[in-house]
Amino acid sequence: MSLGEFELIDRYFRQPQPRPGVVVGVGDDAAVIDVPADRQLVVTADTLVTGVHFPASTEPGDVGYKSLAVNLSDLGAMGAIPRWYLLSLTMPEADESWLADFTEGLRALESVEGVTLVGGDMTRGPLAVSIQAMGLVRRGAAVLRAGAEVGDDVYVTGTLGDAALGLKLITGELPRTEFGDDALARCIERLNRPRPRTVAGYSLAPFLHAMIDCSDGFVADLGHVLRASGRGAEIELASLPLSAAVRRMVETEGWGLPLSGGDDYELIFTAAPSQRSVINGIADTLHCSLTCVGRIVDEPGIRLIAADGTVKAGDLHGYTHF
Amino acid sequence: MSLGEFELIDRYFRQPQPRPGVVVGVGDDAAVIDVPADRQLVVTADTLVTGVHFPASTEPGDVGYKSLAVNLSDLGAMGAIPRWYLLSLTMPEADESWLADFTEGLRALESVEGVTLVGGDMTRGPLAVSIQAMGLVRRGAAVLRAGAEVGDDVYVTGTLGDAALGLKLITGELPRTEFGDDALARCIERLNRPRPRTVAGYSLAPFLHAMIDCSDGFVADLGHVLRASGRGAEIELASLPLSAAVRRMVETEGWGLPLSGGDDYELIFTAAPSQRSVINGIADTLHCSLTCVGRIVDEPGIRLIAADGTVKAGDLHGYTHF
Repeated sequence: MSLGEFELIDRYFRQPQPRPGVVVGVGDDAAVIDVPADRQLVVTADTLVTGVHFPASTEPGDVGYKSLAVNLSDLGAMGAIPRWYLLSLTMPEADESWLADFTEGLRALESVEGVTLVGGDMTRGPLAVSIQAMGLVRRGAAVLRAGAEVGDDVYVTGTLGDAALGLKLITGELPRTEFGDDALARCIERLNRPRPRTVAGYSLAPFLHAMIDCSDGFVADLGHVLRASGRGAEIELASLPLSAAVRRMVETEGWGLPLSGGDDYELIFTAAPSQRSVINGIADTLHCSLTCVGRIVDEPGIRLIAADGTVKAGDLHGYTHF
Repeated sequence: MSLGEFELIDRYFRQPQPRPGVVVGVGDDAAVIDVPADRQLVVTADTLVTGVHFPASTEPGDVGYKSLAVNLSDLGAMGAIPRWYLLSLTMPEADESWLADFTEGLRALESVEGVTLVGGDMTRGPLAVSIQAMGLVRRGAAVLRAGAEVGDDVYVTGTLGDAALGLKLITGELPRTEFGDDALARCIERLNRPRPRTVAGYSLAPFLHAMIDCSDGFVADLGHVLRASGRGAEIELASLPLSAAVRRMVETEGWGLPLSGGDDYELIFTAAPSQRSVINGIADTLHCSLTCVGRIVDEPGIRLIAADGTVKAGDLHGYTHF
């Protein structure tokens, strides 16, 4: 059975019940949204292209999940609560089985994050998913990249490099046999279904000076914060949070995976040392793993300090598209 | 010279001055927007893919202009005033000359429409432009597809079929030599740089029952209004607004171009007959060509009434992507 564009939208994307803040949802020329008077709207857009952002063999459910996750991660990095999103889906043909799996991936993340699809479009073309996500912050409460201050602690949530290791395992660049089943599954899960740190982002926001999500790699993304803030940072390599699998790779291959692997979707943020106890308390309450990895300094650039005290400059090398 | 993703964004997409309502614009994880307390947010997304929505030979400035125009047209069809947009640009390589021309097209429409780019992303892949546009309406003032009432007049702005004729001329499906230079230029302009009817949309909105923009073709888009409203329509073919070039095509080829050609980006709307004088007065003031082409009836479907009184059913055939 072949359905047309509008029937497919009806079947897979229309939301049955009224949703909070949604005056008009999927199905008109545009959606109509109520933004509460004491909130500001936070909006972001990110596109995932087959063969560029994910291998062509990626399961459609993972494509759906990750496309939404990377956008919610950007909202989390502003301290915003995600609320709504638009989906622009470009696919070569109307494959209903693919669409069913794809929407399962979206729904899985929608339900835990409390976000609602309100519109978008479907077009024919090479597989690509473009999502625009919207969230809310209290007026003036968004956490920007530009606020880092000298003396701030630099924190990172979770662990770094697992997704990049997962990609190397999927593509065969590294042999799977060298890693246990659990480590393998965990790295691939981190790659395909990264859980955005939205709750940590908006819970910690009031206590932070600057925040970004880690998508291009730790050094590149911290570099964005430092350039926007006109500051530098000293990072203790030994304190970087690593899984056992990534730690093993670091021992044999160096620091590439955690420093510039990318696709982590962890939060990197800075805060005054006086906030340490409240920040760690919130992270504990949320069961969000959190590590202080260095401090903000006046001198621009990133100095990576090894366990033996040697210092090297971070080359700010991360994944860029051009 | 080859620039990276972030340098390209800086050079081509960062907005120099503060813009109304924009608290944080291009350059952070997400944009932050102030939505006035007495307004609702109206959001839409549309993607244009090379070889699907425009021929690969289309000038980059036209690609930029049209990508934004089709989104603003959706906002106009809700009665919203366009304000901000996000751009997700996928392109095969960082071609600076292409980007300069592309942004010229965006800027040309931005300046007349008063909209501001606030964020988005650039990725590598087959050429595609996904835009998410945001506008504002007074609370409860959005004009939906579902409000058409029996007895309403059916109006359409501008003329129908010119863009579809332009496409046939560009692709060589029709010989250019049969049309004068002026008609040729006008049809191609309608195809490549459709001027969205935003001012007419939000000026007329308070007096309308239902509205949609004409992108898939007149019969298909009127069909969306009728299905959403649970009504039908009688359309007088002789009253359809046509340019001389399209009228000539209708005489030899029938009604395909104006009824299902698509890409018109005119507004189709319905209103009570009691509003005729105010609606025509507003259209005159705005120099917006406007034609009453029929009426809403109780019986579902579209009846197309020819000049000789014969009636045929509209097959609701329009352009769909699958």
